[in-house]
Amino acid sequence: MGIVLGPNRYGKAQTRVVRVDRDGDRHSLRDLNVSVALAGDLAATHLTGDNSQVLPTDTQKNTVYAFARRHGIASAEDFALLLARHFVDSQPGITRARVDIEQYDWRRLGPHSFERDGGSTRTATVRYDGDRAEVIAGLSDLVLLNSTDSEFRGYVVDPYTTLPETDDRILATAVDARWRYAGTAPPGGFDAAHTAVRQALVDAFVGTYSRSLQQTLYAMGERVLTDRPDVVEVRLALPNKHHLLVDLSPFDLDNPNSVFVAADRPYGLIEGTVTRDDAPPELGQW
Amino acid sequence: MGIVLGPNRYGKAQTRVVRVDRDGDRHSLRDLNVSVALAGDLAATHLTGDNSQVLPTDTQKNTVYAFARRHGIASAEDFALLLARHFVDSQPGITRARVDIEQYDWRRLGPHSFERDGGSTRTATVRYDGDRAEVIAGLSDLVLLNSTDSEFRGYVVDPYTTLPETDDRILATAVDARWRYAGTAPPGGFDAAHTAVRQALVDAFVGTYSRSLQQTLYAMGERVLTDRPDVVEVRLALPNKHHLLVDLSPFDLDNPNSVFVAADRPYGLIEGTVTRDDAPPELGQW
Amino acid sequence: MGIVLGPNRYGKAQTRVVRVDRDGDRHSLRDLNVSVALAGDLAATHLTGDNSQVLPTDTQKNTVYAFARRHGIASAEDFALLLARHFVDSQPGITRARVDIEQYDWRRLGPHSFERDGGSTRTATVRYDGDRAEVIAGLSDLVLLNSTDSEFRGYVVDPYTTLPETDDRILATAVDARWRYAGTAPPGGFDAAHTAVRQALVDAFVGTYSRSLQQTLYAMGERVLTDRPDVVEVRLALPNKHHLLVDLSPFDLDNPNSVFVAADRPYGLIEGTVTRDDAPPELGQW
Amino acid sequence: MGIVLGPNRYGKAQTRVVRVDRDGDRHSLRDLNVSVALAGDLAATHLTGDNSQVLPTDTQKNTVYAFARRHGIASAEDFALLLARHFVDSQPGITRARVDIEQYDWRRLGPHSFERDGGSTRTATVRYDGDRAEVIAGLSDLVLLNSTDSEFRGYVVDPYTTLPETDDRILATAVDARWRYAGTAPPGGFDAAHTAVRQALVDAFVGTYSRSLQQTLYAMGERVLTDRPDVVEVRLALPNKHHLLVDLSPFDLDNPNSVFVAADRPYGLIEGTVTRDDAPPELGQW
Repeated sequence: MGIVLGPNRYGKAQTRVVRVDRDGDRHSLRDLNVSVALAGDLAATHLTGDNSQVLPTDTQKNTVYAFARRHGIASAEDFALLLARHFVDSQPGITRARVDIEQYDWRRLGPHSFERDGGSTRTATVRYDGDRAEVIAGLSDLVLLNSTDSEFRGYVVDPYTTLPETDDRILATAVDARWRYAGTAPPGGFDAAHTAVRQALVDAFVGTYSRSLQQTLYAMGERVLTDRPDVVEVRLALPNKHHLLVDLSPFDLDNPNSVFVAADRPYGLIEGTVTRDDAPPELGQW
Repeated sequence: MGIVLGPNRYGKAQTRVVRVDRDGDRHSLRDLNVSVALAGDLAATHLTGDNSQVLPTDTQKNTVYAFARRHGIASAEDFALLLARHFVDSQPGITRARVDIEQYDWRRLGPHSFERDGGSTRTATVRYDGDRAEVIAGLSDLVLLNSTDSEFRGYVVDPYTTLPETDDRILATAVDARWRYAGTAPPGGFDAAHTAVRQALVDAFVGTYSRSLQQTLYAMGERVLTDRPDVVEVRLALPNKHHLLVDLSPFDLDNPNSVFVAADRPYGLIEGTVTRDDAPPELGQW
Repeated sequence: MGIVLGPNRYGKAQTRVVRVDRDGDRHSLRDLNVSVALAGDLAATHLTGDNSQVLPTDTQKNTVYAFARRHGIASAEDFALLLARHFVDSQPGITRARVDIEQYDWRRLGPHSFERDGGSTRTATVRYDGDRAEVIAGLSDLVLLNSTDSEFRGYVVDPYTTLPETDDRILATAVDARWRYAGTAPPGGFDAAHTAVRQALVDAFVGTYSRSLQQTLYAMGERVLTDRPDVVEVRLALPNKHHLLVDLSPFDLDNPNSVFVAADRPYGLIEGTVTRDDAPPELGQW
Repeated sequence: MGIVLGPNRYGKAQTRVVRVDRDGDRHSLRDLNVSVALAGDLAATHLTGDNSQVLPTDTQKNTVYAFARRHGIASAEDFALLLARHFVDSQPGITRARVDIEQYDWRRLGPHSFERDGGSTRTATVRYDGDRAEVIAGLSDLVLLNSTDSEFRGYVVDPYTTLPETDDRILATAVDARWRYAGTAPPGGFDAAHTAVRQALVDAFVGTYSRSLQQTLYAMGERVLTDRPDVVEVRLALPNKHHLLVDLSPFDLDNPNSVFVAADRPYGLIEGTVTRDDAPPELGQW
């Protein structure tokens, strides 16, 4: 019964890079938070402190900045592909790379003026194993609310049930979505694809009469797969941001779905995947 | 040399209330975070535990919900005025009230569907002393960036100075602004006034060629006072969200204001007030 | 090419429960944050809104509180086992449960007085599939620092390398550890086991002369497995909380490892698993 | 009716500095977060962009690091005094300085090994106007809980009251305290004074049978002033971290102060000052 090194990886997390591009007087921005994780033949550094296969995380950071200058940032996904391929292809000791990027969007206010869009954050993940590259785009903290057209009834009742059924409630969530592309070059490019998937998610949330947040989740994933043939799988994590009707009867007031407490926690959390039945297996949980 | 009770106050902080209004099928939302602080003759509870002058913070919370139903929420400021006056005017032991509100805005997606606008948060503060009421509106986390038209030179050089002068840098900040109205009913109402002040702040940031963030701060405050006769004072706290040019020379790359590190801390912090010279004194720091 | 429902689960996240036990005048506390996730035959709710197999998350929350009263909280792990088994064993439609608990520790100040220990948070995860139960304990945010006995040299140098080698640096990290027990009843109980594993992690960090954070990671995991036969696997995520030596030469000052910047980001992130070679497979990533 | 520049200040916020001292093999740490704010004749930079009186915030940061090396860090308060005096006394255009420091404490694990104490944070504020210096020490996030010996009754009942009286509840708070010293050199030094004041606050919380959190607040402040003649004023902000008894009657369970919800918000917030009646006026809110 020996003790052995299991799965491992290392890298530089959260390198913040902003690239400004100038088209004459008109500037544009890419504002990214880049995290790199590398794996390979790293037993020596763990077991003996022999670092001869270790590309320092400081070098990874430098590479992010140098690549931003040398290659530009066509999109978060394209930049992640470039980096992931570089690390594996240039380092004999590295066999797998994962690059995670958060992109912060800015609204244009003028030729060289911008306001940060504080809503949802765009995400991109690339995995590359020296052979295959996989692109998973996403978004987080897209907060949506329907003030009606949501009910919740017909559920299991057990000895611990006190929740009354409702046929009209607020349904609100902070969408966390991740979708996997079929390849590495969706038609129209990654920016346009992201915009379209985001719109599909929003449209499905808005347009679905909801009997449960699960039903809404499935509708959102299905809509993305229907609209976008280049997407093979959608994962959604939807917190149920409860809005609880306040009991105003002690004050001789009714409350016809008018005044709510926006509760923080606990919260319901609905997680699910909607997938094509012929989606290729993922490159790895890793 | 005795020990005495000094300034004190108490209240319920962060009551989250959402009010839905229905105009037929078309709904609208107010989403607030309400904090109440009351002061008055509260020596007994501090010194002896006699609570006969204490309106429990739980009751304050209930009042927020009941008032949201009974009176609606015309605006954050109007709602704060209503609450502040209620507590002082109805409680003999309470002589001063302060109500602080954060408002979270939602973009309309459909007749009863909304997306939370994750950008800047709107704030409202009302102070009331039984006689005079004072309204201070504000916003926080409005993140703005100019990618040029900013320089910084001609400053003091002392033995600890290493910063090189620059005639072209990124200027970025997260605006925290508070402005005091002359009265309690700005022409057009508080919502329209807020929109106009916000726009004045943004316009001044965008339109000012900046020799220092202080200069930009003054320009922003001045613009508000010029545009809005109903505002008597503007306070601004502007963190200098440094974007540092990366030295790419080790990689044989130039960097003509192209690739930056978005730094977190330390950061410069510029705070200042722009005021009318005949602004009435504030009701109190309290 | 059809669209289908993939892996899914749902539950109540972050139910905050505090249980007070009284042994005469001497009280004790358990302070937990409990998250439940259930899976099973949930296609109907996703596809048609038929909730007849859904145990509402509100009921899950009620169960947490009722069980805290009925059964007490022997330990976070025991409580998680109790809950996980209950949901699967009592609900025909539920086949798998996962319970995640954070425990906040309190230091005793008196018979019924406590100070919250703001350091590391204890975690417990239980997975149960109706047959097998698996217990993974852990801790997060245990911040450790060695001010010497750490070096970093002999690494790969590529065109993007600028980092100088060092034979004396600060090594600091915020330990995030998860360890899997062989069974569901470690000798001495879960509380004692947790204390022992924590101590092993700290001892190994303190006692290891470090040539890389990877080496320290492995030493920490190995120490746990050596000390505790009831643990089969240890996973560690160690951010390298960089402390950068400040260049004081512009001020005619030396800096012999005396004054450092504590940097926030980017940071190195080292993740790895140390395992017994005969560890049974995990019950699931799920 | 002119528009004028009102109160203003600027500085570098959140400079993170760690100083390691070596006494042979035995090391010790100071881990600070330093914020500087300066005021003076700064109209020119605001109005015209003339920076000839501006000491750049970058220089302020450099000064923090250089002083940490040159003078060491005897205590957070001493270091703040040193910095505040330097900026005002060396810069003709600067007439007032404020230095705010957070200190993060570390527990010793070995001669050069430490664990960060994640509990309360120590704070120090120094104001200096070229003549007088004022030292305000403090702490935040000291979370205390009494599981009995707290009641709340006899309060005002109005039409919005629903809270039942209680003669036995949990009382919990996160202490935020600021205390002002009579001078700049308390007997025994700032570290010992801080330890003593912290202990007085804790002892008073633990030892007070509480009829309201206000009463506990006063007892805490009074204890500090009684124990420490070198302290002239204590300000406390005490959130009432509500622990709500769960109604378990739907499950045929009693709940004799056994199982509680630890609520996040809303929360009561009690703020008050306990002062000597001959305390000198504060140097300024500024």
